[in-house]
Amino acid sequence: MLSRMAKSLTPRDALKKTGPKVQFQMRIRKGDTVALGPGKVALLEAVREHGSISAAARSLEMSYRRAWLLIDELNRSLKSPATVSEQGGQSGGGCVLTPVGEEIIRLYRDVEAQAQHACARQITALTRLMAP
Amino acid sequence: MLSRMAKSLTPRDALKKTGPKVQFQMRIRKGDTVALGPGKVALLEAVREHGSISAAARSLEMSYRRAWLLIDELNRSLKSPATVSEQGGQSGGGCVLTPVGEEIIRLYRDVEAQAQHACARQITALTRLMAP
Repeated sequence: MLSRMAKSLTPRDALKKTGPKVQFQMRIRKGDTVALGPGKVALLEAVREHGSISAAARSLEMSYRRAWLLIDELNRSLKSPATVSEQGGQSGGGCVLTPVGEEIIRLYRDVEAQAQHACARQITALTRLMAP
Repeated sequence: MLSRMAKSLTPRDALKKTGPKVQFQMRIRKGDTVALGPGKVALLEAVREHGSISAAARSLEMSYRRAWLLIDELNRSLKSPATVSEQGGQSGGGCVLTPVGEEIIRLYRDVEAQAQHACARQITALTRLMAP
């Protein structure tokens, strides 16, 4: 959001006009790996928007290999996969979300909004401690 | 918590007995910097426990310089500081929390618990999508 604002403002203006921003991140860990977290959800959203893992990776300035590994790790951690790759193999074909993939995005974004709402009192108290 | 469990169990046992773990992190950003986040709160707690920035840094396997810079950045972002350093200079003296520092820890830990509580339904739905 800041980056979009910054297009019409100088960086200095953008900083001046930006009060404290609160960001929530949830991670679901299974053993050593983060089964689900902000990176994987952003990647799912990029796949949904761009229709392939390679285009999604480019949009996030991530290597194709890393994006593919993250999607693979996510799908392995699920009962049924979040994405389906079309014919064309690892480097060529398209990739679409399954209903499970859509549901994961919806639930995850809902968590962020709900957490912020539920903690409004504490967030207000914390931001009041901050210098203007 | 896992590391404490792991002392009495082999790593393999610890993984087997650990279901999905949910972790919330909140960050309050001001401009480019994270004014408050999990790293600074953990550092405040370590200062409270160990009584100096150097001992706190050691306990978190962080350099003294980095710990000092984080505390300094935090204090500068607040109306009144979270810590007070005793005589002895940057490398020697003790460091204690002010009531503001105590309040920050309390509010931050409260946010984590509250967020998890408020999002219990979505968290359950997400963990149900995961392979056992």
